[in-house]
Amino acid sequence: MNKDAGVNSMSQPISRAAPKTMPYGGYFARDAQMSPPDDLEILRTGPGTPMGEYMRRYWQPVCFSKELTDVPKAIRIMHEDLVAFRDHSRRVGVLHRKCAHRGTSLEFGIVSKRGIRCCYHGWLYDVDGTILEMPAEPRDSRLSQTVCQGAYPAFEREGLVFAYMGPPESKPKFEEFDSYVLPKGTRLVPFSNVFDCNWLQVYENLIDHYHAAILHNNMTVEGVESTLAAGASLGAAFGEMPIIDWHATHSGNGMIFTAGRRVTDDTVWVRISELSFPNWAQNASVVPSAARVRHSTVSMTRWQVPVDDEHSIAFGWRHFNDEVDPDHVGTAEDCGIDKIDFLIGQTRHRSYDEKQRIPGDYEAIVSQGPITIHGLEHPGKSDVGVYMCRSLLRDAIRGKTAPDPTRALVEAGATDTLPRYTSDSVLRLSRHPDKEKDRELLRKTAHQVLAIMKESEVLPSNERRAHVLRRLDEIDAA
Amino acid sequence: MNKDAGVNSMSQPISRAAPKTMPYGGYFARDAQMSPPDDLEILRTGPGTPMGEYMRRYWQPVCFSKELTDVPKAIRIMHEDLVAFRDHSRRVGVLHRKCAHRGTSLEFGIVSKRGIRCCYHGWLYDVDGTILEMPAEPRDSRLSQTVCQGAYPAFEREGLVFAYMGPPESKPKFEEFDSYVLPKGTRLVPFSNVFDCNWLQVYENLIDHYHAAILHNNMTVEGVESTLAAGASLGAAFGEMPIIDWHATHSGNGMIFTAGRRVTDDTVWVRISELSFPNWAQNASVVPSAARVRHSTVSMTRWQVPVDDEHSIAFGWRHFNDEVDPDHVGTAEDCGIDKIDFLIGQTRHRSYDEKQRIPGDYEAIVSQGPITIHGLEHPGKSDVGVYMCRSLLRDAIRGKTAPDPTRALVEAGATDTLPRYTSDSVLRLSRHPDKEKDRELLRKTAHQVLAIMKESEVLPSNERRAHVLRRLDEIDAA
Amino acid sequence: MNKDAGVNSMSQPISRAAPKTMPYGGYFARDAQMSPPDDLEILRTGPGTPMGEYMRRYWQPVCFSKELTDVPKAIRIMHEDLVAFRDHSRRVGVLHRKCAHRGTSLEFGIVSKRGIRCCYHGWLYDVDGTILEMPAEPRDSRLSQTVCQGAYPAFEREGLVFAYMGPPESKPKFEEFDSYVLPKGTRLVPFSNVFDCNWLQVYENLIDHYHAAILHNNMTVEGVESTLAAGASLGAAFGEMPIIDWHATHSGNGMIFTAGRRVTDDTVWVRISELSFPNWAQNASVVPSAARVRHSTVSMTRWQVPVDDEHSIAFGWRHFNDEVDPDHVGTAEDCGIDKIDFLIGQTRHRSYDEKQRIPGDYEAIVSQGPITIHGLEHPGKSDVGVYMCRSLLRDAIRGKTAPDPTRALVEAGATDTLPRYTSDSVLRLSRHPDKEKDRELLRKTAHQVLAIMKESEVLPSNERRAHVLRRLDEIDAA
Repeated sequence: MNKDAGVNSMSQPISRAAPKTMPYGGYFARDAQMSPPDDLEILRTGPGTPMGEYMRRYWQPVCFSKELTDVPKAIRIMHEDLVAFRDHSRRVGVLHRKCAHRGTSLEFGIVSKRGIRCCYHGWLYDVDGTILEMPAEPRDSRLSQTVCQGAYPAFEREGLVFAYMGPPESKPKFEEFDSYVLPKGTRLVPFSNVFDCNWLQVYENLIDHYHAAILHNNMTVEGVESTLAAGASLGAAFGEMPIIDWHATHSGNGMIFTAGRRVTDDTVWVRISELSFPNWAQNASVVPSAARVRHSTVSMTRWQVPVDDEHSIAFGWRHFNDEVDPDHVGTAEDCGIDKIDFLIGQTRHRSYDEKQRIPGDYEAIVSQGPITIHGLEHPGKSDVGVYMCRSLLRDAIRGKTAPDPTRALVEAGATDTLPRYTSDSVLRLSRHPDKEKDRELLRKTAHQVLAIMKESEVLPSNERRAHVLRRLDEIDAA
Repeated sequence: MNKDAGVNSMSQPISRAAPKTMPYGGYFARDAQMSPPDDLEILRTGPGTPMGEYMRRYWQPVCFSKELTDVPKAIRIMHEDLVAFRDHSRRVGVLHRKCAHRGTSLEFGIVSKRGIRCCYHGWLYDVDGTILEMPAEPRDSRLSQTVCQGAYPAFEREGLVFAYMGPPESKPKFEEFDSYVLPKGTRLVPFSNVFDCNWLQVYENLIDHYHAAILHNNMTVEGVESTLAAGASLGAAFGEMPIIDWHATHSGNGMIFTAGRRVTDDTVWVRISELSFPNWAQNASVVPSAARVRHSTVSMTRWQVPVDDEHSIAFGWRHFNDEVDPDHVGTAEDCGIDKIDFLIGQTRHRSYDEKQRIPGDYEAIVSQGPITIHGLEHPGKSDVGVYMCRSLLRDAIRGKTAPDPTRALVEAGATDTLPRYTSDSVLRLSRHPDKEKDRELLRKTAHQVLAIMKESEVLPSNERRAHVLRRLDEIDAA
Repeated sequence: MNKDAGVNSMSQPISRAAPKTMPYGGYFARDAQMSPPDDLEILRTGPGTPMGEYMRRYWQPVCFSKELTDVPKAIRIMHEDLVAFRDHSRRVGVLHRKCAHRGTSLEFGIVSKRGIRCCYHGWLYDVDGTILEMPAEPRDSRLSQTVCQGAYPAFEREGLVFAYMGPPESKPKFEEFDSYVLPKGTRLVPFSNVFDCNWLQVYENLIDHYHAAILHNNMTVEGVESTLAAGASLGAAFGEMPIIDWHATHSGNGMIFTAGRRVTDDTVWVRISELSFPNWAQNASVVPSAARVRHSTVSMTRWQVPVDDEHSIAFGWRHFNDEVDPDHVGTAEDCGIDKIDFLIGQTRHRSYDEKQRIPGDYEAIVSQGPITIHGLEHPGKSDVGVYMCRSLLRDAIRGKTAPDPTRALVEAGATDTLPRYTSDSVLRLSRHPDKEKDRELLRKTAHQVLAIMKESEVLPSNERRAHVLRRLDEIDAA
């Protein structure tokens, strides 16, 4: 005990820096636990924030079509309290929730033949926010011409309601990606997934493909019931540690990973999933056939939409067709509001005990905290994709990113749908006896497949698949 | 995309002012959603705030008599944590909740023959806060003479407990309004209604009579079960849009509305309800007979008491007598703690679905938010009363309001009870063929009724009704 | 009403100081209710705070052995989120909860043969925080040598898990007190008790013995069911108001109370309980035999461990042996996680109604608020012990306290266990006819017993009891 100058070392914190690699060094690392969020440039999404404004330049899903019933639906999206409804003329309205008159919530408004009526004094609003009636005001009142309820353009598409929350003069067309119509007859089924955390840690999980071989590969406590354990694993070749590369795409407006895995001595599986900024993503197949079907494309489109900075919702569509799921493993009836039909552990609806015994994406992501603190991470080579994603987002909001050339094509009417690269492809390639050489082969093949997908981009959408299949044959034959 | 100086317009908010009347202008109106409360002068009621001090100069109801049982009742009123009890000598105590000794809550104290005893070290407090016993202190301790528990004067009246929380030297007599004893034999039944919002938005609803013709007139979703729909409507003539005027009364210490409605080609109904500041109110009849009985007075007295700035409780009495409810529609047994016997939608105890389908006062008021933001409102002519109420409150707390002359009368012993104007009166007046002229007739008649009520003010309370009836006859005959 | 200068006295707070002893003076005392916590020097326990650092220089219990199962146990202790586990090699780990890699919570990690594996990317940590595996990183990665998970040394003892959260170089030996092994065959049974309040108001309750004669002596509402009422009272001689003195012990590193009570005309009971700073305590017997058994020692050892500044947990052991509980009143099976086998009202698990009717320590302590405000107290002579405790803690963290000499003895290997004074002793002493003189006799006798306990301190642990018994006989004979 130090008695010098009356100072007792018992109550003095020791603040010297300790090496990060100190065993039993919790005392020196503890302050990091209390760090505030950093990297706010890409984490914050409120009105006026760079990331928030970036997202507001795109159509965003805000709720389900089936939530528009005979009563209004209160929603919170992008830090704003809103009310969504479909009037009796079947037009969709997305309005600020509190009535412009005296602030009563329009969630208690009455959906009407045209627009919605506030319950308190009866102001009737059209879907664009203009005032149609003010029943308690004198007949000659001009008040209705001096005020308008805050409103956002909205429409319905395949079971989802989309709204545009940016400045009116910047309103873009809704982006039609080729996967929405290809292959012919594909069925889009809406789903959502509510996360009690910042949008970005969910979004970047989609490009962090290494975790598929770990979290989704028998990461369970011993003795777990076998159906549950199987339900939490992607199974088959997904468990194989892939050779992954990440690539910025579309002038930096998106990115992909290419993952090459050897499936058998004779076959190689190349998988591509992708992000399109600010918050859209597509996954390739989520069922075991991914590793044996010659070529299939998208199984899931999703937008990671902020509620506020500590809550977000994934809205999206599951794609059902015979290419991406030939065995019909997926089940459309298990997709819906805060539910999804693949992999146990996607949603919040499990007991704590089951979450501990069979952790899934939800646990891995949400337990990072309400907002992951980037400065506390210790990234490795396997995290390059996540860091590339963050870097590309920063570039985009700083104005360093050129426009996506494919968007220009669509805007110019040159093509019908925006092409993307998401796909699974299986090729015939014999295993190289040298392990390291075989890994190089996987990498090279993955890049070849990406090149083929890029070639197909300039073709009309209905010619893309044939081109890809022909070129895959050429590689097999080489 | 603006590439000048590396700035990407995608992430820059557009901050120019947009016209308030812009359709789909939510982007420009969104910041208003995040405004903080304003007009705090009349919204805040904590200790030392102007409005809080104003209220503290009056007796306020704080709980029910029947809540004073063999255990203490913890209450929070006017931002203060208190404990109320009735000792075994039947005296009522309202004390600061935490024991002056070491802070243990007196809600765990033992109600005693005289006063209340803290459970921890046994200090015994009288109802005025003085210390009667300190069992663990030496017999010769003088500690009890140097400390006192914070206490407020309190008494019981018609099932309610009233306390005076202002400075002792300003303690007024409890105000006896004539409606507490008139008509002879009227029965006062206590009720309360808990609101999760600021006191003022509840209080001003009482003077906002236009909403009665809208919110309380079949404002339900189609298909709602008919009994429920009927229970949410005042029915009969209430649905007619009235001719309303607002008048400051009693030198600005209160205000009323007069509402004239044509009931039939031959009859006109004039209704007056009123506020007496700071937070007392009376309503005329709440049943359909209001529109056909010659003359009746008060159906409900209530105080809107702050819990804190985001919570308040209406405490009051329902008045039952053959004039205000000749058909005995009201039911005393449905009045009590957080329940009231008229109009579905007064209290918080409904499912969200029912609230959406059959919105009531509770939904309209509480959904305005924890504290309504006045600066975001867009008031019309129908809101004049609400704005007059706020203005009179501001005047009162700024010392611009002269004393209420009727209070002086009572203080001087010149009259037994304070007269007020709350009433429903039905007159025989033929419809004017010109619609606008008929509206003027309604307005004029309403003002005549008010004048009559004012005349009756100087009479002894038991002579007031006869005078009013005689004068109504005179108008009919004119 | 004051109309001078437009100022209305109705809305002006009256701020003059009123005498503390003013009956009905709540208006003047109300601001005190809103005071913030003071005395933070000894109330705050976060990292880097004086009190927090002081506690971190000692081994602290953090959870139960039986909570270390096949899944990790998430705990929050000393303001830090941690995870505790026992790996398949039966070694105990206490790690910072969020994975050093990307922040996923290790409560969803998989307990492994050696250490724990994060579910997300599979990093495997040893119990000391070093990294054993990073499966997604290249084989030649040196990343694992540059980072370490925050970890604390930990071990299990008698059903509790202890961790050392201070600087590694100051790590002390775990303190072995004599009561852990004396009397021979004593059985230690772990328990905990969760408090929703600051640690200190629980800790100081243990030295505040006067409350035993009040709170634990029929402090119930009339008519309470008799078994419950009895269960809330210590019974027998505990209800007698004792003669209490407080003494600093071990150079100010601890303190005790001595409580003398007359049991019969011929017998006197002397009780000693004690604190050892920063947060350890021992109680003498908690059953009625305390007042009739010649000599017994400890019934309960406990540490009051902060969770954060507004929550704390008592972890400890109940001691079962034939001396301290010859009638076997205690029941080991009622001791465990947040449960304890004596006195109704120790834990939070009761209805509000029962808490009001039969208040216990939990109600008395927790209702003082999340952090008791010392400046609002009005202490008397009976509070001297509580204030001495606070003062000694302040001295200790300010470096004014010399080391505990008995710790030096153990560190030097001079004795096997740390001796303490906690005990109940019954002596034969006739009542003095003069009441005041008899009180002096009780006080003197209590001090004699303390002197005897101190004498025994220098003896080997197995000789202490015989010495005490012999000396008690001498007093009886005197």
